[in-house]
Amino acid sequence: MRTRAAVAVEAGKPMEIMEVNLEGPKAGEVLVEIKATGLCHTDDFTLSGADPEGAFPAILGHEGAGVVLEVGPGVTSLEPGDHVIPLYTPECRQCEYCLNPKTNLCQSIRETQGKGVMPDGTSRFSMLDGTPILHYMGCSTFSNHTVLPEIALAKIRKDAPFDKVCYIGCGVTTGIGAVINTAKAEIGSRAIVFGLGGIGLNVIQGLRLAGADQIVGVDLNDDKAVMAKKFGMTDFVNPSKVKGDLVGHLVELTGGGADYTFDATGNVQVMRTALEAAHKGWGESIVIGVAPAGAEISTRPFQLVTGRVWKGTAFGGARGRTDVPKIVDWYMDGKIEIDPMITHTMPLDDINKGFELMHSGESIRSVVIY
Amino acid sequence: MRTRAAVAVEAGKPMEIMEVNLEGPKAGEVLVEIKATGLCHTDDFTLSGADPEGAFPAILGHEGAGVVLEVGPGVTSLEPGDHVIPLYTPECRQCEYCLNPKTNLCQSIRETQGKGVMPDGTSRFSMLDGTPILHYMGCSTFSNHTVLPEIALAKIRKDAPFDKVCYIGCGVTTGIGAVINTAKAEIGSRAIVFGLGGIGLNVIQGLRLAGADQIVGVDLNDDKAVMAKKFGMTDFVNPSKVKGDLVGHLVELTGGGADYTFDATGNVQVMRTALEAAHKGWGESIVIGVAPAGAEISTRPFQLVTGRVWKGTAFGGARGRTDVPKIVDWYMDGKIEIDPMITHTMPLDDINKGFELMHSGESIRSVVIY
Ligand SMILES: [Zn+2]
Ligand SMILES: [Zn+2]
Ligand SMILES: [Zn+2]
Ligand SMILES: [Zn+2]
Repeated sequence: MRTRAAVAVEAGKPMEIMEVNLEGPKAGEVLVEIKATGLCHTDDFTLSGADPEGAFPAILGHEGAGVVLEVGPGVTSLEPGDHVIPLYTPECRQCEYCLNPKTNLCQSIRETQGKGVMPDGTSRFSMLDGTPILHYMGCSTFSNHTVLPEIALAKIRKDAPFDKVCYIGCGVTTGIGAVINTAKAEIGSRAIVFGLGGIGLNVIQGLRLAGADQIVGVDLNDDKAVMAKKFGMTDFVNPSKVKGDLVGHLVELTGGGADYTFDATGNVQVMRTALEAAHKGWGESIVIGVAPAGAEISTRPFQLVTGRVWKGTAFGGARGRTDVPKIVDWYMDGKIEIDPMITHTMPLDDINKGFELMHSGESIRSVVIY
Repeated sequence: MRTRAAVAVEAGKPMEIMEVNLEGPKAGEVLVEIKATGLCHTDDFTLSGADPEGAFPAILGHEGAGVVLEVGPGVTSLEPGDHVIPLYTPECRQCEYCLNPKTNLCQSIRETQGKGVMPDGTSRFSMLDGTPILHYMGCSTFSNHTVLPEIALAKIRKDAPFDKVCYIGCGVTTGIGAVINTAKAEIGSRAIVFGLGGIGLNVIQGLRLAGADQIVGVDLNDDKAVMAKKFGMTDFVNPSKVKGDLVGHLVELTGGGADYTFDATGNVQVMRTALEAAHKGWGESIVIGVAPAGAEISTRPFQLVTGRVWKGTAFGGARGRTDVPKIVDWYMDGKIEIDPMITHTMPLDDINKGFELMHSGESIRSVVIY
């Protein structure tokens, strides 16, 4: 079939909206009509050329929601008409990783996914002249139609609005999951969140959901505090306005350091601050942000020997097919909010404008509605 | 009273054996006759002058066992005749740390202990000319008699031999506790232990006790492998004999990386290797060794985001009054071994020779028997 997509033709250039060829689903695969997709920093990172693993031409996008149109041979858990959210971290429920309760990093299709192809080693997308186009993070939600492995689709309820729950495909789950699955923050916890963009806001509402007593937000931009307060932030710190040592200030503010700290900036120096602002004896610091290639985190080992723990999280530690439908329920039940974070919507034709809004800091999340 | 002690008169010089004055126990304190004490690298670190917090003159030693001679007012849990092991990490059972199940770092007397004095701010030791002598790590087991707070003494069974169980006061508990309390290693785990000195051997026997399936030992000295095998090591790796990347070699040897890795070297580069040799998705690396002042650990945050966890441990995460008596039982019941690690014993007069044996690498543990 043919469909319309935003194609990242080469690094550092705007995407081109074009008709592309899409082959139907092979064994174990599913054809999905994407109804809406969020624009994530990771897409931008790859499009910019900064991602050392980025390859082109490709159809980016990994934060979508849509409807199953057709299933390939052997697909048993989905049927046409099902509503789904694509998963860049699949859940095969059979690999060594899926069978280990400590991780969500299903490895069953990692190698081909990393190469931009389906598990059989080929792409379903091509240009009208036949040039193959790569998939991206196994999702390619910047195409109106896409093909995914069955294990990379979470089946969700049919009354959930696509243009909101698409955000659960990455940012919402990453932020809330970091609190619930990775930190496992307890009721009454004190926490610090570094970076009040979309991920940071979702960490904050995850902390509120988990019953945290103190939720400190840290950002260089005072304007970010308004929205963060709406999501549950109790204290705001602008490091540029702190006299003296930021760690010392945060330790004092949290009565000895936070039980949990979260880096949602991707800045390795901030990651160090986050670790060192965690409470002696039991504080855990969770790295969420993606650092530039080659950047390293450092600290004195004394920080660990005195009881701080340094962790990271990917896709919020969530097992997508199991956890994403639950998070959709939380949204529909009003336990979490998404609507105020979707600051801009646009048709596919305007997707490059969405990335401009990201760069200028005007948007929290832009969503393309097909 | 007067007693005999090895006094660290100044940094970088051998200790001097001399008679010293010892005041009796004040409220909440206990007078203990030390029967035996191990010689630990931490004593050596302080004596050398490398410890930025080292202060002199002091009576070092923190790995002892002895008998209660007298208790001060208000002491309720001990009486003369009780056998005890001094605890450099006390357990008050009342402070914020003792009441948090995630840590063993009781803070109730931390400040005075760090200054080399009893909780009332004064020292019980002095030279015969009246010059005060500092306590060390709240223990000062290089004195035949010493005074400690009640909360810094673990009461142990009376049939346990002092010259063996003194080692439980530091090295044994640090190594075994790192496995049992900090890593909480499960039956069937795969583990790597960096550094096969006394701490490393105790990590290894802790792993054996915990039912680990694979216990890889890493040391630059082939001779260390003999003893390590006796304690449960299943594979030995000498990094100087590995062609190519050590991390890659260890990951292959453990079938994808170890579930738990332990640094018992204090070398920050080894700490990095230990983290990176932990299994993607769930591997945890535990820092035990004490690094030189100012040294820093580093890695790419990607290592954490892909599921590795970086932790540390002090006194093996053990709560001394609760856990040390149990470890003494394990020794008496034959669940763990200590005897082969006590390679040398000597009278107090020869304590400086004990440190020479440590420097030359001839000893695993030297014990002074009073
Ligand atoms: Zn994303
Ligand atoms: Zn899997
Ligand atoms: Zn020690
Ligand atoms: Zn305490």
